[in-house]
Amino acid sequence: MTGNSLDPHLARYAARTEGMRASAIRALFAVANRPEVVSLAGGMPYLASLPLDQLAAESAELIAKDGRVALQYGSGQGLPELREQICQVMSLEGINAHPDDVVVTVGSQMALDLVTRIFCDPGDVILAEAPSYVGALGTFAAYQAQVVHVDSDDDGLIPAALRSAIASVRESGRKIKLLYTIPNFHNPAGTTLAVHRRGEIAAICAEAGITVLEDNPYGLLGFSGTVYPAIRSMDADNVIYLGSFSKTFAPGLRVGWVLAPHAVREKLVLANESATLNPPVFNQMMISRYLANFDWQGQIKTYRELYAERRDAMLAALEAHMPEGTAWTHPDGGFYVWVTLPEGFDTAAMLPRAVTARVAYVPGTAFYADGFGTRQMRLSFCYPTPERITEGVRRLGAVLEGEQEIMRTFGTGFARRSVGRGPNSPSPDTT
Amino acid sequence: MTGNSLDPHLARYAARTEGMRASAIRALFAVANRPEVVSLAGGMPYLASLPLDQLAAESAELIAKDGRVALQYGSGQGLPELREQICQVMSLEGINAHPDDVVVTVGSQMALDLVTRIFCDPGDVILAEAPSYVGALGTFAAYQAQVVHVDSDDDGLIPAALRSAIASVRESGRKIKLLYTIPNFHNPAGTTLAVHRRGEIAAICAEAGITVLEDNPYGLLGFSGTVYPAIRSMDADNVIYLGSFSKTFAPGLRVGWVLAPHAVREKLVLANESATLNPPVFNQMMISRYLANFDWQGQIKTYRELYAERRDAMLAALEAHMPEGTAWTHPDGGFYVWVTLPEGFDTAAMLPRAVTARVAYVPGTAFYADGFGTRQMRLSFCYPTPERITEGVRRLGAVLEGEQEIMRTFGTGFARRSVGRGPNSPSPDTT
Repeated sequence: MTGNSLDPHLARYAARTEGMRASAIRALFAVANRPEVVSLAGGMPYLASLPLDQLAAESAELIAKDGRVALQYGSGQGLPELREQICQVMSLEGINAHPDDVVVTVGSQMALDLVTRIFCDPGDVILAEAPSYVGALGTFAAYQAQVVHVDSDDDGLIPAALRSAIASVRESGRKIKLLYTIPNFHNPAGTTLAVHRRGEIAAICAEAGITVLEDNPYGLLGFSGTVYPAIRSMDADNVIYLGSFSKTFAPGLRVGWVLAPHAVREKLVLANESATLNPPVFNQMMISRYLANFDWQGQIKTYRELYAERRDAMLAALEAHMPEGTAWTHPDGGFYVWVTLPEGFDTAAMLPRAVTARVAYVPGTAFYADGFGTRQMRLSFCYPTPERITEGVRRLGAVLEGEQEIMRTFGTGFARRSVGRGPNSPSPDTT
Repeated sequence: MTGNSLDPHLARYAARTEGMRASAIRALFAVANRPEVVSLAGGMPYLASLPLDQLAAESAELIAKDGRVALQYGSGQGLPELREQICQVMSLEGINAHPDDVVVTVGSQMALDLVTRIFCDPGDVILAEAPSYVGALGTFAAYQAQVVHVDSDDDGLIPAALRSAIASVRESGRKIKLLYTIPNFHNPAGTTLAVHRRGEIAAICAEAGITVLEDNPYGLLGFSGTVYPAIRSMDADNVIYLGSFSKTFAPGLRVGWVLAPHAVREKLVLANESATLNPPVFNQMMISRYLANFDWQGQIKTYRELYAERRDAMLAALEAHMPEGTAWTHPDGGFYVWVTLPEGFDTAAMLPRAVTARVAYVPGTAFYADGFGTRQMRLSFCYPTPERITEGVRRLGAVLEGEQEIMRTFGTGFARRSVGRGPNSPSPDTT
């Protein structure tokens, strides 16, 4: 390990710690959070539509009536009532599951951590879409797993590309442990895996002995109201499914879950206990009451309409303000549009100038483990109002115009002063 | 990896997963939670004295007024206000710390996990008291660290034993990364590290280049009201300090923290984000309001008096009901008494008979990484009432008498049918 001689602990760290580095992007995001900046970077849901007064009353009743349970230690697997309700939520996606195979976790991020922990030795390979969720890439790196990206198109992961990735990784002598995939309203790509590909991908992985890790935080947030069948609904034995209430309700209670084949579930409970003893009981009971006593499906409908309107604002603004030769995805749900700029742009190098122009985004390199994504960027439409989105994309268009000016005058090399690349660790700003 | 051919994922697990096994003790604890059993096994605080109605009102106000923040994503390091308040709490133990060096975690268990994650490669050694906290041993095992126990006496860890442990481990060619120690009202030993030993232990570790991991959930629960200076108060550069609100307030919100030297703190924030993105914001704001608006020190005094009365009941009952030759510790705080039975007893083998006689405890082997603790047991006095404690110890005395009868008739070998040994993973029952 090299570097910082100011840290006397340096020689004492584990090998895995070398991969944990703060991205230079972080400092920029601190600036990006100022109110005058339109942040198209964050993945924060827009919570203004939540019935806060009723939730307040619900939490008060929970503590007054059940406080001695809600404030006590609990089970490492999570509350049985909540796990039953989670099975009902998953049934909307065609999943037939038993509550005994569900483990409640501190957000689905903790589930990602635990699955990686029990499956991956250093050097093991995880296949993932190109691009993929920055927070997953950070967790995989923390366990020294190697990510190999598999090509995707507008219909999501390409089965033929998956087959050839498996073959070429195996030829290199490495072990493939997981296929990590976000089938619905992908973060960051904004695409959805075509239903006709789902069974094929499940079958390829089952045949190859590779466990599918299906991450599905956005599945119920399809703008047309369509809910696609989960990959898990097609293969109960070889798929580990991650779910979350962060996007369909709110992230501040940090309640997610993992549904796994029984033997894997046992390991996950032990790992969960080793990590946190148990997920917070109050939070689980609060979610359980929310599902029992509130119109949670109505709330999801509200979110869908809200986000659809913002998606429309973003797509219209992109049409109006992006330079010629720019391409972007047209998401039917979720939070994100993935933008590909013409050759020559470097979105990481450009970020400081964008923030100066009071607009922020996440550079594409954050979503690749292998340095790709230089001319891509993720724009999120979940948090700002439609007016702010329009204004933000307008500012972004002006920045891109300025960049093109510089490139025309001085050549593309001038723009390439990147401030930070690669997934590093996820920050809540980039979820 | 061997065993369970029913798990098709078996060949896919990481090497570290082999160490994750459910203890046979778990099944017994499920029985031990029945109301007719007096459980002296659990480490659950007694929450009946909490002002639930006021806490209910506080949570309602929090959600109604600040719900959009409380239910949103937050910072991976934790809320600045709460970190300032945590520094005030730690100042009671002589710690002079900056909020910037505090990281809020999902209970201090998550902090234990993260510290082990950033420091320990497989095979690295962690020194720990003999016996030590079962939940820490489980986490260390999950990272394939090796625990070497250091002898302790009624005054806690013995400095000379620490020196010789360091020398002999190094002679064997292994790297020592951490000294894990619980200085106050030790779990499970019930002992407190003498103040005059603290500086010496800090100095030994600093000289040897071994980071001290000071775990202090019980420090404010001294029955005489004495608060001992933390080891961290004597060495800010080489000590990582873990704290928790689980015992001084309530565990159900899962809010703990780690105070670390600055460079280590940076790594811990990245690891925290990789594990959970951020600890739940609602929970942090609730604790912050509790510290600001409630008489939290008065609540701690209430807990102290409550637990002191229960400790008295337990010590009196042990005096009355334990067989000759039994020794036990006399804790001045915390939750636990550590009992050493005469030669020939096997507390793990005896546990099913104890549960049948409607009393439960944790066998001593759970608190050692190396198979010791056969004739030891941990008795907790935190949760049952004094009357139940007295009755529980009476039942335990009767079981021991029956065991002695068998040993006199058939020899000690007969009693040795152990149901489960070693730390395995912690269960909330054994925290």
